[in-house]
Amino acid sequence: MTAPDLKAVDAWWRAANYLSAAQIYLQDNPLLDRPLAPEDIKRRLLGHWGTTPGLTFCMAHANRAILAHDRDLLFIAGPGHGGPAVMAGAWLDGSLGERDPRKGWTEEGMRKLFHEFSFPGGVPSHAAAAVPGSIHEGGELGYSLAHATGAAFDNPGLTVMCVVGDGEAETGALATSWHSHRFLRPGRDGNVLPILHLNGYRIAAPTILGRMEDAEIDALFRGYGWAPIFVEGDDPAQMHRDMAAAVDACLGTGDDDRPPMIVLRSPKGWTGPETVDGDPVEGTAAAHQVPLKVPREEGPHLRQLEDWLRSYGADALFPGGVPSGEVRSVMPAGDRRLGATPFADGGRLTRPLDLPDAGDFAVDLPSPGAEQTGATGVLGEWLAELMRRNPETFRLFGPDETKSNKLSAVFDVTDRMAPGPVEATDDHLSPEGRVMEVLSEHLCEGWLEGYLLTGRHGLFNSYEAFIHIIASMANQHIKWMREAGNTGWRAPIPSLNWLLSSHVWRQDHNGFTHQDPGFMNHLAAKGADMVRLYLPPDANSLLAVAETVFASRDRANCIVAGKQPEPQWLTLDAARAHLQRGFGIWDWAADDPDPEVVVASAGDVPTMEALAAVDLLRDLVPDLRLRFVNVVDLMALQPPSQNAERATDEAFAAAFGTDAPVVFNFHGYPGLIHELAYRRAGHERFHVHGYAEKGTTTTPFNMAAMNEIDRFSIALDVLDRSGRTDGRVDAARKHCHEMLERQHAHSHEHGDDLPEVANWRWSRG
Amino acid sequence: MTAPDLKAVDAWWRAANYLSAAQIYLQDNPLLDRPLAPEDIKRRLLGHWGTTPGLTFCMAHANRAILAHDRDLLFIAGPGHGGPAVMAGAWLDGSLGERDPRKGWTEEGMRKLFHEFSFPGGVPSHAAAAVPGSIHEGGELGYSLAHATGAAFDNPGLTVMCVVGDGEAETGALATSWHSHRFLRPGRDGNVLPILHLNGYRIAAPTILGRMEDAEIDALFRGYGWAPIFVEGDDPAQMHRDMAAAVDACLGTGDDDRPPMIVLRSPKGWTGPETVDGDPVEGTAAAHQVPLKVPREEGPHLRQLEDWLRSYGADALFPGGVPSGEVRSVMPAGDRRLGATPFADGGRLTRPLDLPDAGDFAVDLPSPGAEQTGATGVLGEWLAELMRRNPETFRLFGPDETKSNKLSAVFDVTDRMAPGPVEATDDHLSPEGRVMEVLSEHLCEGWLEGYLLTGRHGLFNSYEAFIHIIASMANQHIKWMREAGNTGWRAPIPSLNWLLSSHVWRQDHNGFTHQDPGFMNHLAAKGADMVRLYLPPDANSLLAVAETVFASRDRANCIVAGKQPEPQWLTLDAARAHLQRGFGIWDWAADDPDPEVVVASAGDVPTMEALAAVDLLRDLVPDLRLRFVNVVDLMALQPPSQNAERATDEAFAAAFGTDAPVVFNFHGYPGLIHELAYRRAGHERFHVHGYAEKGTTTTPFNMAAMNEIDRFSIALDVLDRSGRTDGRVDAARKHCHEMLERQHAHSHEHGDDLPEVANWRWSRG
Repeated sequence: MTAPDLKAVDAWWRAANYLSAAQIYLQDNPLLDRPLAPEDIKRRLLGHWGTTPGLTFCMAHANRAILAHDRDLLFIAGPGHGGPAVMAGAWLDGSLGERDPRKGWTEEGMRKLFHEFSFPGGVPSHAAAAVPGSIHEGGELGYSLAHATGAAFDNPGLTVMCVVGDGEAETGALATSWHSHRFLRPGRDGNVLPILHLNGYRIAAPTILGRMEDAEIDALFRGYGWAPIFVEGDDPAQMHRDMAAAVDACLGTGDDDRPPMIVLRSPKGWTGPETVDGDPVEGTAAAHQVPLKVPREEGPHLRQLEDWLRSYGADALFPGGVPSGEVRSVMPAGDRRLGATPFADGGRLTRPLDLPDAGDFAVDLPSPGAEQTGATGVLGEWLAELMRRNPETFRLFGPDETKSNKLSAVFDVTDRMAPGPVEATDDHLSPEGRVMEVLSEHLCEGWLEGYLLTGRHGLFNSYEAFIHIIASMANQHIKWMREAGNTGWRAPIPSLNWLLSSHVWRQDHNGFTHQDPGFMNHLAAKGADMVRLYLPPDANSLLAVAETVFASRDRANCIVAGKQPEPQWLTLDAARAHLQRGFGIWDWAADDPDPEVVVASAGDVPTMEALAAVDLLRDLVPDLRLRFVNVVDLMALQPPSQNAERATDEAFAAAFGTDAPVVFNFHGYPGLIHELAYRRAGHERFHVHGYAEKGTTTTPFNMAAMNEIDRFSIALDVLDRSGRTDGRVDAARKHCHEMLERQHAHSHEHGDDLPEVANWRWSRG
Repeated sequence: MTAPDLKAVDAWWRAANYLSAAQIYLQDNPLLDRPLAPEDIKRRLLGHWGTTPGLTFCMAHANRAILAHDRDLLFIAGPGHGGPAVMAGAWLDGSLGERDPRKGWTEEGMRKLFHEFSFPGGVPSHAAAAVPGSIHEGGELGYSLAHATGAAFDNPGLTVMCVVGDGEAETGALATSWHSHRFLRPGRDGNVLPILHLNGYRIAAPTILGRMEDAEIDALFRGYGWAPIFVEGDDPAQMHRDMAAAVDACLGTGDDDRPPMIVLRSPKGWTGPETVDGDPVEGTAAAHQVPLKVPREEGPHLRQLEDWLRSYGADALFPGGVPSGEVRSVMPAGDRRLGATPFADGGRLTRPLDLPDAGDFAVDLPSPGAEQTGATGVLGEWLAELMRRNPETFRLFGPDETKSNKLSAVFDVTDRMAPGPVEATDDHLSPEGRVMEVLSEHLCEGWLEGYLLTGRHGLFNSYEAFIHIIASMANQHIKWMREAGNTGWRAPIPSLNWLLSSHVWRQDHNGFTHQDPGFMNHLAAKGADMVRLYLPPDANSLLAVAETVFASRDRANCIVAGKQPEPQWLTLDAARAHLQRGFGIWDWAADDPDPEVVVASAGDVPTMEALAAVDLLRDLVPDLRLRFVNVVDLMALQPPSQNAERATDEAFAAAFGTDAPVVFNFHGYPGLIHELAYRRAGHERFHVHGYAEKGTTTTPFNMAAMNEIDRFSIALDVLDRSGRTDGRVDAARKHCHEMLERQHAHSHEHGDDLPEVANWRWSRG
């Protein structure tokens, strides 16, 4: 391969700019075969010109770089509303026409490209899932560089060119993403080439970085660890020369030990109208969206639009609707094309994980309650074997909590990735580490998303309360997966998996800030077709969930599981069968065919407390007819109408009955159970205990008691709901109240829980 | 005032370190009057030593600076788990004892201080609301510097000293917060003095910044616009000299035009055990939490603890439990004390806003539907007058959307704050601006929180979809307000107010990424005692809501209101009365005393569509008995048991009836209505239409139709629920289906909505 000449690069750029502007404006007359007429213009002008010419400029040089350096390159368009540019690129390299033959290299194909941009039934105005070659949507801003870094992990031959807009650069997620290169390992990982594109403006005002002097920008990025190269100006010929030299320098063998990056200063709306109605447009915030507002009537805007469009010379660029030989000379072939690279359709590259047999790691359980262990510690052993078997396609992410979440077994296999020098006292830290720890949930999430979008697998473990930090990222990734599924051509990618340990009921020592189960509420709204919420009640259940989520595709799986030693309830076989159903009766705990009250639970601590309540009641009121139901897959509570794959109404009725009150002990906010189950028959029987937004620094049992999810509060509610009023019931009630008082007094005097509370064990059968 | 000598500063520091270590360990023997015995040690050791000595070091020098420079200083402790340090400071300066006389300057007061730290019924391990002198909790990390900046706005005499931990410095929010100083205006605003505290470690591993060389750190912070001064070492005497000189340089008249900051490198766990059981502790991650794990038994840990504690010389520092004269010489008096400054109890400084009369701005409405306007545009005029009347106590925050959210009227009063040079083409940008625009929701939220916590007022306007970015910050601020209310001594602060415009139903042009109403779900879980969700159906309702939220205290108010021209329904008086009730019948629309179906709505677009459905049905099936109910205050749907102040069950039944089906057209996810209303009588009658996670780039009406919140889908559902089957009903049904088909075909051909759909007006009475 040889580098195309810069005249051809300029031709490609002009072609992409023409296609971009035309997408915003034209519904007909795609090649300007005749004078532009009002009826050629769309009725509703939607799109963003301002960022586009800078993006197409970068894409032109990305194409040139692939040819000049003979390498795989993935292009990430960070700036918002860059849709016209990336669609133009995908049309030019033919990848769009291959996926949607109506949009091929013909005049009619061009017309369709233009007409369907930002149009009902068409494509959105960002680099969306519908755009070939994209793994990143410039809708909500901030995640481009984290995605780029995740894409580069374990792809040693790959260059990820990532354009960061100066608007996006103001976001928190992006501001810390500049440190990401410290986590890339030459030889093992690919390289990321950021292009900070300073066009100077957000929607309506200048950007911070756009108004900083070069010296300050240089200092900032040297401080972040990069070696910046500046490309600045507005003369196309000079800019092409400078940009080609900068890219060549970045992709060559550098003489700086810092990774290179490019700072590109070019006018917002470059090559568009300089002024409109006498007001400056090019190089100002006025170029952000649609520069000429009223071209759908005869008048100066229409004429100015025509002059603008004709300035690119479409007739020479697309003779008969086909990109000219000169334009085509800038583009690589086959899978090297920006729009066709499999790195941007990661499912094509996905290899299933070699999953260890959970049976080799399961807790051996002679009877329910007979063993006591921490669930995440057991999972950690399994994960260690998983990482041993899949040394290049799996990573573990988290904000410095791998050890505190009891997953340390993975350190038998690998280390933490060291983002700087290693000292003798450091614990499992090395430049080869595959455990990605950084105290930024945004980076953990963004890296993992980039890793998944390019076809690999991973797990993000975090504190339950602080996972809210990436609520918006979760949102956008789920939206992306939904849209990707609608394209018809994107291959499924591995699911996004979170393990929320250090959960609300075991953050008694860290206090109120660390106590929050609300992330499940956030996810549940997205629907069971995309989301699963798993609440494994013990270690074997967690193993069963792990087997499931790491084999799944195109979903977001949220697992909430504790790290503290807790009683174990199910053998692995039982756990797998239970998970398969989503919920079910635990007959060994209580299984009256005609229950007075159904006791239900979801979550490890609520399950233990609910079982302790059943234990207590079976002692105190032996003839009380109870049934015990546990829910491990929360979205299975939704009716089949919302979730056709899930539990039927018959299964629901078989477990929860149809008449008896249900006292439900739930890990999260009680309202969530109602939100999910409100269309199930007899939902009004459900009385849910859960987190009532009461917390502080206290003891484990007190956390439960403050929110009335403890065994005594559950037992009291069961007695109430049973409607029984005899003497034994009164005595049982009295016992519960006394125990709550004794525990309260003990904990406030000694700082820990009553031994008989802390040491309760299930000892029946 | 004169500066205390550094020997005294060291004494204060040792005193604070003693008090900090003792809080973690001791339940008795507070002055070490006798040899330390196992029973003096708490049973459960909770707390974090690692960050503490660096924090107390900064506090010692903060105290010195107040005296040396005769100024108000607010101290913000960013690092996680800094609770022992700030509690020690508040005990030392007497502010703790003034609020809780059991914790005064006596041996018993010390005992209580120690015993109740991280203890049931006591205080948490962070700089929580319970800590005098704090406006910031080091629980979830990332927001200290944004809070500090918000506190400095419009407080020209104030210095905010903000300690940023190197763990926290990895977060996205903090990484972009370093740009915040560009938004401070000398003379109008106070100054922020950041101290980047590099103790080198997070929980278990080194930090990124901790392992960076000084030259790289210097470049980074010069790039951010600061002038860093380094203070590094572990010799206390030298470090005191260096720190005092650095602080004096920072608070003196600088000769650099950049604001100064301090980079403090000191060992993690400084002055604590160097090694434990032969392993290094001081200066490593092992110092993070409790260095000596088993001092509650006779043995080396107990003896080492005693040696450590005695190393501070408590007998000389606290003779008889009273801080020595030398220690006291370092502390300012009265309101200048760190623990007593009113800037840290902002409600004491709050002046109510001078609110404009909404009547001067209201839409004059001869009859429902007679006018058409954009709600936020009307609010903008009122906000402009609000800002005119309150030039020093109100600011408007947002990520560059003031204009696009139609609040531009405020630019008649003030400008955007310019974070850099201003150019001739800039639009309403100046260094005096009070509209705080930055493309970081974290900064908008953090600045506003800091501004509110110091007693001022503000509004954050944002896109509805992207407000998820600060979901976790909202969470933590609400937790803070809840805890502040529990202290008994904190004065109420102005509420946190969000205006979510550019909402899900009017982001048809921006596509799926911009369409998300889930923030309400997130907030609703926090409970109606802290949160209000307002869905004003028109401009006058929005004005009424604005009057309410800006007069409220200690709440989080989320307002969702559109910016596009929409029909207007209520006069201002009617809107105020409607808001007072939370929900109610709109009798002018439909008010049958015995309705066959109740049509209900919440949100501007769903309300318009529901009214259009009623309009249609009244034409097509004139004898259909309907009632129309609108909900403006969503949390009023909760039953009184969850929310004692709100609408009674009688009011609920009077509006929604008790038997008839309710077809509810909702702005957000349908499940939220069920979550809120599930305990209301007859909840099973509710059939909610809302956002079904269906979106793309399309037309406004298509967005509604995709999710079946459009007039035709509502009308069809009303007909279904009515149970009627006559010929007119069949004809009405047919009409609805035909209209949906025509609209679909039209929009996919022309890119806009059918004129008769887009131009529908209410024209009855």
